[in-house]
Amino acid sequence: MSVPKSMMASVLTGPKTIELTQVPVPQPKRGEVLVRVTAVGVCGSDTHFYEEGHVGDIVVQGPVLLGHETAGEIVSVGEGVDPGRVGERVAVEPQSPCRTCEFCKSGRYHLCRDVRFYGAWPVDGSFGEFALVDDDFAHRVPDSLSDEAIALLEPVSVAVHAARRAGVFGGSRVYITGAGPIGVLNAQVARAFGAVEVVISDPVEHRREFALKHGATRALDPGHADLAPFAEQFDIYIDASGNAHAIRSAFPLIKRGGIAVLVGMGSDEIMIPVALLQHREITLTGTFRYVNTWPTAIDLVASGRVDVSEIVTGRYGLDDVEVALMKAKTDPLAIKTMIIPGLTQRASLT
Amino acid sequence: MSVPKSMMASVLTGPKTIELTQVPVPQPKRGEVLVRVTAVGVCGSDTHFYEEGHVGDIVVQGPVLLGHETAGEIVSVGEGVDPGRVGERVAVEPQSPCRTCEFCKSGRYHLCRDVRFYGAWPVDGSFGEFALVDDDFAHRVPDSLSDEAIALLEPVSVAVHAARRAGVFGGSRVYITGAGPIGVLNAQVARAFGAVEVVISDPVEHRREFALKHGATRALDPGHADLAPFAEQFDIYIDASGNAHAIRSAFPLIKRGGIAVLVGMGSDEIMIPVALLQHREITLTGTFRYVNTWPTAIDLVASGRVDVSEIVTGRYGLDDVEVALMKAKTDPLAIKTMIIPGLTQRASLT
Amino acid sequence: MSVPKSMMASVLTGPKTIELTQVPVPQPKRGEVLVRVTAVGVCGSDTHFYEEGHVGDIVVQGPVLLGHETAGEIVSVGEGVDPGRVGERVAVEPQSPCRTCEFCKSGRYHLCRDVRFYGAWPVDGSFGEFALVDDDFAHRVPDSLSDEAIALLEPVSVAVHAARRAGVFGGSRVYITGAGPIGVLNAQVARAFGAVEVVISDPVEHRREFALKHGATRALDPGHADLAPFAEQFDIYIDASGNAHAIRSAFPLIKRGGIAVLVGMGSDEIMIPVALLQHREITLTGTFRYVNTWPTAIDLVASGRVDVSEIVTGRYGLDDVEVALMKAKTDPLAIKTMIIPGLTQRASLT
Amino acid sequence: MSVPKSMMASVLTGPKTIELTQVPVPQPKRGEVLVRVTAVGVCGSDTHFYEEGHVGDIVVQGPVLLGHETAGEIVSVGEGVDPGRVGERVAVEPQSPCRTCEFCKSGRYHLCRDVRFYGAWPVDGSFGEFALVDDDFAHRVPDSLSDEAIALLEPVSVAVHAARRAGVFGGSRVYITGAGPIGVLNAQVARAFGAVEVVISDPVEHRREFALKHGATRALDPGHADLAPFAEQFDIYIDASGNAHAIRSAFPLIKRGGIAVLVGMGSDEIMIPVALLQHREITLTGTFRYVNTWPTAIDLVASGRVDVSEIVTGRYGLDDVEVALMKAKTDPLAIKTMIIPGLTQRASLT
Repeated sequence: MSVPKSMMASVLTGPKTIELTQVPVPQPKRGEVLVRVTAVGVCGSDTHFYEEGHVGDIVVQGPVLLGHETAGEIVSVGEGVDPGRVGERVAVEPQSPCRTCEFCKSGRYHLCRDVRFYGAWPVDGSFGEFALVDDDFAHRVPDSLSDEAIALLEPVSVAVHAARRAGVFGGSRVYITGAGPIGVLNAQVARAFGAVEVVISDPVEHRREFALKHGATRALDPGHADLAPFAEQFDIYIDASGNAHAIRSAFPLIKRGGIAVLVGMGSDEIMIPVALLQHREITLTGTFRYVNTWPTAIDLVASGRVDVSEIVTGRYGLDDVEVALMKAKTDPLAIKTMIIPGLTQRASLT
Repeated sequence: MSVPKSMMASVLTGPKTIELTQVPVPQPKRGEVLVRVTAVGVCGSDTHFYEEGHVGDIVVQGPVLLGHETAGEIVSVGEGVDPGRVGERVAVEPQSPCRTCEFCKSGRYHLCRDVRFYGAWPVDGSFGEFALVDDDFAHRVPDSLSDEAIALLEPVSVAVHAARRAGVFGGSRVYITGAGPIGVLNAQVARAFGAVEVVISDPVEHRREFALKHGATRALDPGHADLAPFAEQFDIYIDASGNAHAIRSAFPLIKRGGIAVLVGMGSDEIMIPVALLQHREITLTGTFRYVNTWPTAIDLVASGRVDVSEIVTGRYGLDDVEVALMKAKTDPLAIKTMIIPGLTQRASLT
Repeated sequence: MSVPKSMMASVLTGPKTIELTQVPVPQPKRGEVLVRVTAVGVCGSDTHFYEEGHVGDIVVQGPVLLGHETAGEIVSVGEGVDPGRVGERVAVEPQSPCRTCEFCKSGRYHLCRDVRFYGAWPVDGSFGEFALVDDDFAHRVPDSLSDEAIALLEPVSVAVHAARRAGVFGGSRVYITGAGPIGVLNAQVARAFGAVEVVISDPVEHRREFALKHGATRALDPGHADLAPFAEQFDIYIDASGNAHAIRSAFPLIKRGGIAVLVGMGSDEIMIPVALLQHREITLTGTFRYVNTWPTAIDLVASGRVDVSEIVTGRYGLDDVEVALMKAKTDPLAIKTMIIPGLTQRASLT
Repeated sequence: MSVPKSMMASVLTGPKTIELTQVPVPQPKRGEVLVRVTAVGVCGSDTHFYEEGHVGDIVVQGPVLLGHETAGEIVSVGEGVDPGRVGERVAVEPQSPCRTCEFCKSGRYHLCRDVRFYGAWPVDGSFGEFALVDDDFAHRVPDSLSDEAIALLEPVSVAVHAARRAGVFGGSRVYITGAGPIGVLNAQVARAFGAVEVVISDPVEHRREFALKHGATRALDPGHADLAPFAEQFDIYIDASGNAHAIRSAFPLIKRGGIAVLVGMGSDEIMIPVALLQHREITLTGTFRYVNTWPTAIDLVASGRVDVSEIVTGRYGLDDVEVALMKAKTDPLAIKTMIIPGLTQRASLT
């Protein structure tokens, strides 16, 4: 396709203000590719940026396109990139590390101090018709994957990274708190990595039911379940809720020598039962995004070992991004909301 | 049940000589349980003992009951064992380590220099109506498992140990040479541990077909397949053939940083391409039996992640052990042969 | 030597009451050896038992001999033990696991739910002339080691276990809070494991000076030091203080991907900066005693890589155990206090 | 300093032909720095290139500067590099990976299929007055290190990488075959990583004596030593000889669960005792150069844990490179030979 000079984009221009506007299509620099966005998922952090103007230390200080769960097609390439890539359907890994620091060179580029995150000020994300990404972070996907499945590789990557950090092994028993999209994908990925039992806990019945259909072997209502029979039953605990109470309640369920991995974002500090952690030699850690996960995520979804087909519960055009952001947050029945640029009603702006 | 004083047993009494005879039922000593044998698989090492009188350094020097892939029911217990175990259906882990050496105490009791192996002279195995085993090595199994499935937990354990030594991980690509029972179970266990691709190689068409139905994603005929397209494609290589040519041919297929695990027994020495191993930093290792595998093997089979239902291709009573041993070796259609004491025609001897 | 029928022992008989009394010499059972105690270190937990009547969940409910940092000589052996061991000088590993549970069989016998600890009610320790221990937990030591050095292998083991849990590696940078005997031994063991920098923090000047002579490359006074220049400088953090404030202050000093290991006992719960832990993917864990550490501890001390020669700052006979317990707690200049049964003034009791 | 337009260089121009000639000083491109060479070690591979015209698959097809063990000072920088680096004394890591492939991104950039090696055709090395290197592969060193010590960080890196691959741990016992510079540095690095025993084997008495002064705790003459008492005594075996007989003889000395790491280059194929390897679950692997080793190598040498002060046994100017190459190969008393550009007699050419 010929790449236009300008595109429609939903730009975060101020507190709780997203404007659909015409902006220049960015040009791929050396080592970059330009992707036409076919689908982009809405993440909790997008809504948080929209409502609060920051996520942790990252403060929005100027106009920016949010959106970092991106499916697309390469439409042009920068210097040094194989022009044969034009036309490839790709999943976007939304980060760009420095590639020369000790973290980048030791296989932990997500911990690079100079990493640039797409969809977080000042780096534009995918709530527009086109987006830039590093050549090698535009991961080729098989034809069998739908655009939405491709976009969902980002949350699948979160779960793959968590499963790796947790060391999910063949025959393991896993406890997960929080049955949102991340919790459910963690359940599926844990199963794909060989877990024989995955118990998930969530106060919302609808989410528990969804989880049971997608990887969990058992679902608990934390308000009513008696956790005592589960004491010391789990090799691995993964939090996908960010809820301090859920996290604290989970520790007694972890086996001696087990591990707890915090994936959900929540309080800056939590009261941790360190005496228990010492006595049982439990390991506690957290995840920060992902590293080297896309190839595995693609394999898992393409081979059917992780099924993302029913995760999407809402689809909106670029002209409905604000609606989508709020829907994702407030609708208890929403699992994952997608922005589909192709659904945009206002095909052009004046 | 009340335990009889004597039992029928198929005793290896000399070169290529197994006699069905009446022998005393052994008494469980401190820490042991007595198991009534309900099914016991025939292993290649059984046939090798029968034909050659030795396996490696272990030489048969007196009468012995072979058989170490055992399903049974606990019928009596020795001192210090919970009497409530009588009646339990169990899978037998056929080894008894010293429990005090550095290997036993560091989680590698299979490497214990003083380990006693069941079914290898001088320790009786299970080609009889009853067998002794250490209390904690008689692993309780769920009711859902058939006797034959329980007996097959031993070869499943071989595969679980291989998968662990190989470090099969979520998203890995695995190449296996040899599609006998161990190769096929390795394929299934690799898949259960998260492998997305399992290519198996075997010259026998029947075995390739069986493998494709049981875990392998692709099967190759080593006599005709062009391996060049597979160069550097596999994270993990597992040999289940013991064939030196197969092993040597596999090295170029292993990825940089990959691993080769030798499970099959064959030559004492093999010419290994060490320059390739160095250049690609490939790791080569082998497995010796198994350690801490039964709980996982039970979980994998009970949860349906490993399917052993079609592995058994022949069943014989204690009076047909010699036939079974030769069938296992010579019949190209045989996958796994079982001895079922209950099928024994001669219910008593004079 | 011929073993007498009775021995002198300092028995904890009630709250803050230790009585020197004549008690029967215990007889080694199957798999046990009897050791004549030549030196036994005083641990903080001994003092805690003496003063509070409990350590955590372990409550003293009857008379017991404290003391678990034991050097001795084997004087008699139980059934099944090589009689040739009589006369061996040994270091006592003061625990006895079940040897059959999943933890014992996977190399983590210290996490065994049925482990018996020596010197903690109801199992007698070494504040007497003789003590019992499992055959394989009486570790032979070279002649070059002094009795006190042998007794100190217990705290060295605590440090070896911590260094292993922390994964101290060649070239690592380590931060330690608390310069008591455990902190100082952790510094030495970290250096022996290849750490190139070991910074230790303690409010007591005397301890800082001692640490600088024994492994630490730098010592900080937490009340006055500016920690800002140390931000993200350490691969590994080990707490040997049990102090919640020290632990919390240490987190910002840990590098991305680093690890924090809590060795010191203190609060049951601590407010942990989980957002930081997630953002940097820091791992937090604790140690519980030790497992398979004596052989390494012996090697480290025998080879001179860990120097324990100046750790002992006080020596008392069995008639001065109460004095020793309080000295260990209250004297700021005391590093490690020893009970030497041979120093006992009252050689016999009426 | 102002950088001249041309420099003296010892160029490999044909079979066994090195010519001292005047060549243009190369210009640093984006991300590169130009280094004035202060010392460069002679490696066996340099001599092999000189004599044979190839090392393995790498064939010299045009004029090239050999030399890749380089110490230097940054004299100019390319685009994107901090100009403040000019004047820094640096150690050169002689490789340049692609930084975008799966190996580069997972911390194994030395396995990158597109890595460029310095000092191997077609990439110029350091047998000249100046050399180019990637910015982040010019590692800053402390002032305390001599130029020769800096150059020796390359072979120290070989040993650090081997020690990591071998998993040398605190308390380990290590067996090394070959007491050349790599063997001796492996001994030292193993000790620095916590090995308590390092036995080295070499047929040359002079080398054995040197090794005993530099890290080895014992040295054996393979022609006369009785290896039987060492059976199963070593956790780790490192070959630094490339000698097939030495390697094969070493296997029986390796403990169950131990590891063998081949560092030396030799035969393409070696007959390996795989039955032993399986029975003992020994792991065999090799090393290919190094990855992420310079920071550790610098720390080890700067802290005095690895002592390289007596390794250098000969020093030559650029006009004596051929002499140096042959000396390194043929003189049994030579450990490491250095080219010091500053020693060059012919200061200019016509």
